Amino acid sequence: MNTSKKIVLAYSGGLDTSYCAVHLSKEKGFEVHAVSVNTGGFTSKEIKTIEETAYSLGVTTYKNIEAISSFYEKVVKYLIFGNVLKNNTYPLSVSAERIIQAIEIIEYAKSIDARYIAHGSTGAGNDQVRFDMIFQTLAPEIEIITPIRDQQLSRQEEIAYLQQHDVAISWEKAKYSINKGLWGTSVGGEETLTSEKGLPEIAFPSQLTKEGKENVILTFEKGELIAINGHQQAPEKNIELLQNLAAPYAIGRDIHVGDTIVGIKGRVGFEAAAALITIKAHHLLEKHTLTKWQLQHKEYLSNFYGMHLHEGQYLDPVMRDMEAFLTNSQEKVSGEVIVTLQPYHFFLEGIISKNDLMRSKFGSYGEMNTQWTAEEAKGFIKINGNQNKIYQQIHSLS
Amino acid sequence: MNTSKKIVLAYSGGLDTSYCAVHLSKEKGFEVHAVSVNTGGFTSKEIKTIEETAYSLGVTTYKNIEAISSFYEKVVKYLIFGNVLKNNTYPLSVSAERIIQAIEIIEYAKSIDARYIAHGSTGAGNDQVRFDMIFQTLAPEIEIITPIRDQQLSRQEEIAYLQQHDVAISWEKAKYSINKGLWGTSVGGEETLTSEKGLPEIAFPSQLTKEGKENVILTFEKGELIAINGHQQAPEKNIELLQNLAAPYAIGRDIHVGDTIVGIKGRVGFEAAAALITIKAHHLLEKHTLTKWQLQHKEYLSNFYGMHLHEGQYLDPVMRDMEAFLTNSQEKVSGEVIVTLQPYHFFLEGIISKNDLMRSKFGSYGEMNTQWTAEEAKGFIKINGNQNKIYQQIHSLS
Amino acid sequence: MNTSKKIVLAYSGGLDTSYCAVHLSKEKGFEVHAVSVNTGGFTSKEIKTIEETAYSLGVTTYKNIEAISSFYEKVVKYLIFGNVLKNNTYPLSVSAERIIQAIEIIEYAKSIDARYIAHGSTGAGNDQVRFDMIFQTLAPEIEIITPIRDQQLSRQEEIAYLQQHDVAISWEKAKYSINKGLWGTSVGGEETLTSEKGLPEIAFPSQLTKEGKENVILTFEKGELIAINGHQQAPEKNIELLQNLAAPYAIGRDIHVGDTIVGIKGRVGFEAAAALITIKAHHLLEKHTLTKWQLQHKEYLSNFYGMHLHEGQYLDPVMRDMEAFLTNSQEKVSGEVIVTLQPYHFFLEGIISKNDLMRSKFGSYGEMNTQWTAEEAKGFIKINGNQNKIYQQIHSLS
Amino acid sequence: MNTSKKIVLAYSGGLDTSYCAVHLSKEKGFEVHAVSVNTGGFTSKEIKTIEETAYSLGVTTYKNIEAISSFYEKVVKYLIFGNVLKNNTYPLSVSAERIIQAIEIIEYAKSIDARYIAHGSTGAGNDQVRFDMIFQTLAPEIEIITPIRDQQLSRQEEIAYLQQHDVAISWEKAKYSINKGLWGTSVGGEETLTSEKGLPEIAFPSQLTKEGKENVILTFEKGELIAINGHQQAPEKNIELLQNLAAPYAIGRDIHVGDTIVGIKGRVGFEAAAALITIKAHHLLEKHTLTKWQLQHKEYLSNFYGMHLHEGQYLDPVMRDMEAFLTNSQEKVSGEVIVTLQPYHFFLEGIISKNDLMRSKFGSYGEMNTQWTAEEAKGFIKINGNQNKIYQQIHSLS
Repeated sequence: MNTSKKIVLAYSGGLDTSYCAVHLSKEKGFEVHAVSVNTGGFTSKEIKTIEETAYSLGVTTYKNIEAISSFYEKVVKYLIFGNVLKNNTYPLSVSAERIIQAIEIIEYAKSIDARYIAHGSTGAGNDQVRFDMIFQTLAPEIEIITPIRDQQLSRQEEIAYLQQHDVAISWEKAKYSINKGLWGTSVGGEETLTSEKGLPEIAFPSQLTKEGKENVILTFEKGELIAINGHQQAPEKNIELLQNLAAPYAIGRDIHVGDTIVGIKGRVGFEAAAALITIKAHHLLEKHTLTKWQLQHKEYLSNFYGMHLHEGQYLDPVMRDMEAFLTNSQEKVSGEVIVTLQPYHFFLEGIISKNDLMRSKFGSYGEMNTQWTAEEAKGFIKINGNQNKIYQQIHSLS
Repeated sequence: MNTSKKIVLAYSGGLDTSYCAVHLSKEKGFEVHAVSVNTGGFTSKEIKTIEETAYSLGVTTYKNIEAISSFYEKVVKYLIFGNVLKNNTYPLSVSAERIIQAIEIIEYAKSIDARYIAHGSTGAGNDQVRFDMIFQTLAPEIEIITPIRDQQLSRQEEIAYLQQHDVAISWEKAKYSINKGLWGTSVGGEETLTSEKGLPEIAFPSQLTKEGKENVILTFEKGELIAINGHQQAPEKNIELLQNLAAPYAIGRDIHVGDTIVGIKGRVGFEAAAALITIKAHHLLEKHTLTKWQLQHKEYLSNFYGMHLHEGQYLDPVMRDMEAFLTNSQEKVSGEVIVTLQPYHFFLEGIISKNDLMRSKFGSYGEMNTQWTAEEAKGFIKINGNQNKIYQQIHSLS
Repeated sequence: MNTSKKIVLAYSGGLDTSYCAVHLSKEKGFEVHAVSVNTGGFTSKEIKTIEETAYSLGVTTYKNIEAISSFYEKVVKYLIFGNVLKNNTYPLSVSAERIIQAIEIIEYAKSIDARYIAHGSTGAGNDQVRFDMIFQTLAPEIEIITPIRDQQLSRQEEIAYLQQHDVAISWEKAKYSINKGLWGTSVGGEETLTSEKGLPEIAFPSQLTKEGKENVILTFEKGELIAINGHQQAPEKNIELLQNLAAPYAIGRDIHVGDTIVGIKGRVGFEAAAALITIKAHHLLEKHTLTKWQLQHKEYLSNFYGMHLHEGQYLDPVMRDMEAFLTNSQEKVSGEVIVTLQPYHFFLEGIISKNDLMRSKFGSYGEMNTQWTAEEAKGFIKINGNQNKIYQQIHSLS
Repeated sequence: MNTSKKIVLAYSGGLDTSYCAVHLSKEKGFEVHAVSVNTGGFTSKEIKTIEETAYSLGVTTYKNIEAISSFYEKVVKYLIFGNVLKNNTYPLSVSAERIIQAIEIIEYAKSIDARYIAHGSTGAGNDQVRFDMIFQTLAPEIEIITPIRDQQLSRQEEIAYLQQHDVAISWEKAKYSINKGLWGTSVGGEETLTSEKGLPEIAFPSQLTKEGKENVILTFEKGELIAINGHQQAPEKNIELLQNLAAPYAIGRDIHVGDTIVGIKGRVGFEAAAALITIKAHHLLEKHTLTKWQLQHKEYLSNFYGMHLHEGQYLDPVMRDMEAFLTNSQEKVSGEVIVTLQPYHFFLEGIISKNDLMRSKFGSYGEMNTQWTAEEAKGFIKINGNQNKIYQQIHSLS
């Protein structure tokens, strides 16, 4: 039996998890193994700082897990395949990250034989649900410790506590709290706690620094973004590059209003140029390469894929079934999409694909055509309308 | 028995239907009753011109039916309730118009006891299906005559024919063919016959003439747009006003790629600022006032509502069932939406509604809250995760 | 402020709620107002016995609420409109009852200004969720007390407790616990706690006492069962009559396996002849009177209607939206259905309806027909197959 | 260029296709290659007779293609995975067969380099659509010839024609036309042309010859029926065996009412004991081994899978996407199902599976349990009900 006091702490470098580090190590006597999971939000310099801070708080070890690739492979890829935008707006930037972070952290905890695991989420939000559910499912034997949720301390109380424990870090609260990752950056502030106020320009991480227009060519192969402007690299690298290309145009800002897992409504700003452009470009390519029924049924499944992911149900096996459908549907989704970037806005010009179902040789919409005759069209329409004609006739007679 | 040669011709003033007017009256000996249906595309001056042209072609009577209100009441209203954007892009501007035009025309034909009805659609597109299906369903006893579809004449042949019949109108082909209506303007040109080319700036009916930003307040009551900037008028009037406010910013341009009813892919540009702003603003208000399951199930139904409407199945009784659902769902969708207009782009700032489900007294997302305890949250998560935990445990054991 | 110790107890006459009655009145000093809600399970004689027992346990008042009609109007009607069978098997007999019972009881509690409400559900099942959720939603100011859930007493402990309090009732445990109501009777026993054992013949409330066959004519009007064998009465009376007609044939037995709200799987036997016959007959009538798309979309909504109802989400406004759809869809669902009853089985012979869409004058399936020509059929098929032909051609070429 | 007059005729031995054989060979001068596809309907003796008849009618070659295994692999397997019953009743016995027959026949035509292909379907039904669509899609270069559809001959005219061509076969019309195959037998007669009449006992191929009850154990592995009563063989063999076991009990009779592809309603009797028992047993096993969301989403997809298959859209790539979902979902659907056969009826007793999610160690439904506390249950319910409580509170206040 594992009787050690080894605990893995999901550590971000922020006030809440710093409090946890001190509380768990100094007050509760745990052997704290801090871990951060980089899903695209941190530079190596930032990680270095997080590491130093962690050790200064008394943790036994600190480890950063680079998870951008597994984030892409396990989650982002399917969000693209499914063109998933929660409530038609939000690419699930943060929701998606939490899933992969939870998985990486619990796997780490198992690998070092930890008996406890801690996270810094409050009791009011979605993250606690995602963390707890994935932790409990993948390692029911590991106990979850959540000081922030349990103690409901104010920011001031946490700072005071850290000062008492000789932690000499300045914890100024940023006017806007942001969460940055491969799939977008969320932005919270006093405005997002209201229903009526938009976020000011300055709240967003990228500011408009470029004018005019710029073309970008996105190349997809079986639904994956394999190249930008003809240069091939890993899809997650292309997403990062696309974000860098679009950021100077201040593209991809919006506000998401949605249902939290705990039943209240939540509101959060975000900037996610790469996610929005990739999804919209991918969707356009699908409109040219998939059949009507593929588009229709994909949408049903993708809406639910997004809902279940958002609600922390990533480990439900139905998600794997949906991924099988989505992966299969991408077989022919290959080609180039031409995108124009301009201030605050992007425009999809068109696509080039060897799998394009829109080819003039099969008839052009609304034009004269040689693929079928007027009589054939009339026959089609006559029989296509049979049921409604019968229905109407019976009910106008009766 | 009705043995007259009275025919109603759906007449738009264009080359195709002008050819039909001459062909049917002069060559085929019909008594032609031309009718146009105004769903927001024509000014009274334009209608006057259409009327004069019609009579010059030999029609017996001409009538313009003002159908903007019935268009709104029978179709547009539900497209707003359902936030319907075909393939997440196109507000079904033209598809929706055709439905109401077909209904108005066939009702007119019945009212004047016509034995025949004619339209000028080709055999390659969607419109023939919509016209024929609605005509056949509402008046199976009236025969449909379609000279353009049957004869497959080229533009040049039609013009030559009209000249032979002393019609002295100049039929220059516009570089871009547009179809204007309350719910948007479609734009076709040589680019839209390709897959890869976007439309040039000049192809769109509205050009950028305003800089800076402008706020607009949209007021909805039970899902209907009852006021703009506080001034109440009929929703269809508000849509027209909103279009006028947004047009100088060149908002609402996009290209729709979709599946035609005849199975080929079609591509068409459009400008539909009012439709897009109204739908997105309405949807945002719904995110604040409807429950998660209302949002989810509305989306399923609305996707299909759009598909069926697009495909001319407006008279299928399932459409009435869906409208009953949609209407009921709008009971609480009342409030104001604050929109910012800017060049090529609009932004939804927020909403104010007495029915807003996001109120801080019920807990704020991610913040400390007093509505439930940490223990209750843990209980929720534990049981919420039961099934996946059981599933995982059984399968990691087996 | 309401400072009384007035409590309403949902009372069934069984051991658990009898324990609650004594515990709450004698030990906790509440003024207990016992209430039972008859949704078709109790005869007036049984209610008399329940009343006497209640008073013998020390309750202040006892009231039976007759709720068969409101049960039908608020729930059962829509389960018929939607042909709702959970997992294609179970008419939600008990789930549906609990909803109406919870509503009636909380309304009663409010009417007598009670400050507390109690039910006897355990912490392991669905009923606690349904009761609590409806109580909390309709009367957040009333506190819920649940002695059985909180104390987790064994049957023996409860009996001993009642004996100590001089309750001289014999509490023999029936080999099979049944829950009877208008919409069916559930049957639980040691077999239903396993996955592999069926219930023995004797476990079901109705035993086979009739041989041969018997015809029954069900008359529906707008989806409601208004007559049996030509005799009109209220639909809920017809359901009771149909159950009596079918019971001697031992029809309607099955075992339901489903997902509980708390995430575990549950298994329960049931006998619900009237529910199954009514639903299947109603569905057959719909197949004749509704269009293909009505049938298809009704099924999507009805599946979710059943899921939400089962999970206690009856008060979510989406349920009202769905009911609006369902009610509208029933406009033409009128006619007679001929059913044959025989041992363990019923068979639907056919229907007679003035709204029947299957009439030979519109063409008979597979027969020669005069409604369209071979050429029209070929035109229909050719165009109907367009997309797949294009798809195949592109991909066999590429 | 292929200029031969080689034609492949889909030949069944019946009057219509015999007429085609003579008409095409003797009158039209085609080189007729008759082919039948056995999907489980013919014994080798019957095939011998068909062969002899074919040659007597003047065909150049005759070939029977044994397609039971490919029928199972390409279609039936997925109908089981999806528990597909059209309109909750019909296992798509004939619809499914036609698909595989069409595929086998067109592949044969391509393999012998035929320029034409013929089938004997009328213009009124579904089969013409299925045949034409698959033929046109897989071999657009092969011309389709349909004498029966084109000529609309009566039975008497066909018989007279054959007599003129010295065909000495007696073509008595059976009172009931049946179509037998692996997945069920359809039964048409004068009753099925009405809406109100059921089929008489004698119309069904199997008659009741056994009394009492009989247990059968079905073993599934990843959704496939791999053994009956412990004896393993190919799933299609097990289906045949199950049919033989159930037939003496006259199980599996019903009448299907549905929408034909051509818009009219159709009605057909059927007997499909093996299909119904397999599907219901498989579904029961799924209820024990799949999660709630797997069951729910499978149902959406399977309903549409059945609709598309029925309508001849088997070659739409969305069908492959759905099959990928369905196949993935079967990963854990393994175990035994215990079925009781009795006259006219079967009953599912229960299941045994190592993947059963219903295990008492995780809590028993409705029983006392040790997996979570009363407090945890209350926390779950409280938060689970949050949204409806907020909704109700806002709207009762407003």
